Amino acid sequence: MTALNPQLRAAHAAAHAVAAMDTLRKRALLHAMAQALADARDAILTANARDVDAATQAEHSAALIDRLRLNPSRLDAVVAAVNQIAELPDPVGEITHTEQRPNGLTVQRVRIPLGVVAMIYEARPMITAGAASLCLMAGNAVVLRGGREALHSNQAIAAALHGAMLAHGVPAAALTLIADVERECIRELVQAQGLIDLVIPRGGEGLIRFVTEHARVPVIQHYKGVCHLYVDANADPALALKLLIDGKTTRPAVCNALETMLLHRDIAATFLPNAVLRLRALGVQVRGCERSRAIYPGVMAASDDDFGTEFLDRILAVRVVDDIDQAIAHIQRHGSDHTEVIATRDAAAAERFIHGLRSAVVMVNDSSRFSDGGELGLGAEIGISTSRVHAYGPMGLSALTIERWVVRGDGQVRHPQ
Amino acid sequence: MTALNPQLRAAHAAAHAVAAMDTLRKRALLHAMAQALADARDAILTANARDVDAATQAEHSAALIDRLRLNPSRLDAVVAAVNQIAELPDPVGEITHTEQRPNGLTVQRVRIPLGVVAMIYEARPMITAGAASLCLMAGNAVVLRGGREALHSNQAIAAALHGAMLAHGVPAAALTLIADVERECIRELVQAQGLIDLVIPRGGEGLIRFVTEHARVPVIQHYKGVCHLYVDANADPALALKLLIDGKTTRPAVCNALETMLLHRDIAATFLPNAVLRLRALGVQVRGCERSRAIYPGVMAASDDDFGTEFLDRILAVRVVDDIDQAIAHIQRHGSDHTEVIATRDAAAAERFIHGLRSAVVMVNDSSRFSDGGELGLGAEIGISTSRVHAYGPMGLSALTIERWVVRGDGQVRHPQ
Repeated sequence: MTALNPQLRAAHAAAHAVAAMDTLRKRALLHAMAQALADARDAILTANARDVDAATQAEHSAALIDRLRLNPSRLDAVVAAVNQIAELPDPVGEITHTEQRPNGLTVQRVRIPLGVVAMIYEARPMITAGAASLCLMAGNAVVLRGGREALHSNQAIAAALHGAMLAHGVPAAALTLIADVERECIRELVQAQGLIDLVIPRGGEGLIRFVTEHARVPVIQHYKGVCHLYVDANADPALALKLLIDGKTTRPAVCNALETMLLHRDIAATFLPNAVLRLRALGVQVRGCERSRAIYPGVMAASDDDFGTEFLDRILAVRVVDDIDQAIAHIQRHGSDHTEVIATRDAAAAERFIHGLRSAVVMVNDSSRFSDGGELGLGAEIGISTSRVHAYGPMGLSALTIERWVVRGDGQVRHPQ
Repeated sequence: MTALNPQLRAAHAAAHAVAAMDTLRKRALLHAMAQALADARDAILTANARDVDAATQAEHSAALIDRLRLNPSRLDAVVAAVNQIAELPDPVGEITHTEQRPNGLTVQRVRIPLGVVAMIYEARPMITAGAASLCLMAGNAVVLRGGREALHSNQAIAAALHGAMLAHGVPAAALTLIADVERECIRELVQAQGLIDLVIPRGGEGLIRFVTEHARVPVIQHYKGVCHLYVDANADPALALKLLIDGKTTRPAVCNALETMLLHRDIAATFLPNAVLRLRALGVQVRGCERSRAIYPGVMAASDDDFGTEFLDRILAVRVVDDIDQAIAHIQRHGSDHTEVIATRDAAAAERFIHGLRSAVVMVNDSSRFSDGGELGLGAEIGISTSRVHAYGPMGLSALTIERWVVRGDGQVRHPQ
């Protein structure tokens, strides 16, 4: 018995109530939650201002404070996201397979909720309501443990959501916000076998490593994105340049931004100089291999560590390769299994790239920035899995359920007596 | 760097070679593996006799020695199983979803292998070749760590399989048998992040707990089966009795055997006496609640612990319940999420039972003994998952793969400049 145990037991008990809700009740609940967030705007922004003040006083980084800060338009976006999740197709009850066995048994696979999903994240209150909504819409109870810097914001958000839940007859424990900000509390959470069915950690490497090291319940890692663009010998240069600029510069701090460009040697001499000029104009520092620097001496030298680094910044590593197989081998060695892109006009090269890699998302002639649940048609995402278990790549509502077996017969036995 | 590390690195490298094999090559490999097992019959049986002798000298239980023992007909069954796995549909490359996005992107979800699957099990050499075949057929490398008592048997089996693999150009490391029989070795195995993609432990509670406690790579538990039969008020008594006898007596030591029967009070008085007589005639001891004993005083008193126990023996716990909701609550409290059966002629009761429970397999009017990958149409199974992550219930070839995303475009970017 630990300090968290009573809270987790309550969440576990509440999971049955959420699982029993039909689609219409869940939609109504989520719309009410969205409305409650809108109604609580002042309280949420006041709590958030308190968190932002404290973070500023504590001299946290500008990036952390930016992720922490809410404002009316960001809150509007959260409200819209919750309303949108309310209208997504309900995965629960979906029959994914039906088969009649020779002995007359009807075998079906049917989606059910996972149970209790715990999300462990950092100082990003923008995530709180969306993650809760996705878990509830998929029929799960949810346990949220956000970063300490966002505690007051998260508490104000949870209070608003709880109001809507209680009005709809859903126990508040179905959305349990953990207020204990010590790291030891994470250990208790990820060791709560029988109470937590899945843990999704989202955050920096330190958090992910801590969770992985201590977990005794299943974990889906939302790890780093070291995304590659490989420009093949016969790529359309204008198209490749568009993918490069979009992938590297439109939002460098997110996981589906490009970190490394691999250039086929036959296209490097014509493509690289132009690309460097465009990138520099957009404030991107290019770090190149020796062959890149022979083509364009102004490029800074890349260190070995630059390949495989998630810069999350306006920095791009560039390497010239002999052929597509060298590109594939480079990605296998340095990649993070997140998202890789090939620019090519050669259909066979595209297939070779796809089959040679086992990354979660492999793209042909489009931007890595589409590696996102919303863009790929999931409607919303709770994370992007980089481990090849349960879900791989962007995770939507279905990834918060599991297929189980329903078997109907009329007296079949295995060994008739 | 640990003692196991070089072996696991070799398995990890070999995974790419297995993943690159097309269906025909994999089928040919598996048929050759089956033939190699048949050809090595004498060597395998000699090695097995050495293991059986040692286990007998060490005074291991008769049950362990029975699981350990191979003979010509058991080996024939293994050979047949491997040949059958060779002909199963190949899940790798299966396109499970195709969607055209409004911006013209074609989004597909396509199955790929997991990578390296490790199986940790006890002294059951019957499992070795089948598990290896399933993993390879799904495009994975496999690391096997069987019980120490079966080491010579497993080495002889692996040697035969390696012969076939090398003849087909597949690196031997794609099937790595760990010969280190110390438990510490299991710890190294389940902490090999980046080298092992999934661990499947099969065995007693002690093994499962050890793996869960130490694992840093994903684990799918093949845990106990405390299977329930609920006989509803208006069940067909003859049908319910058939399910009871089949579920309890045809193979009591397996996980899909029945352990507990719940009887609606309205049928208990007529059903129980007859059931007890039949069960006793088949050597089954019945342990009943107070209400059962009031109906049939000869029944032994059940202790609280009997409910929720996986007897794996000719013992049945019986409880009389007021209604279906009490039956569902009992299973929620005492069950292991494996397999539950309702006998009823009431379609609404069947639906209530299905929706009230989240066990991996829920059955209406058929025997729990069908809770098996082969019986449910998977062709073969590598285990039965009792955790609601990745796979739930019997796991076949598909559960040894994962869906990833393939996205094709013609220059789409997220923010056109």
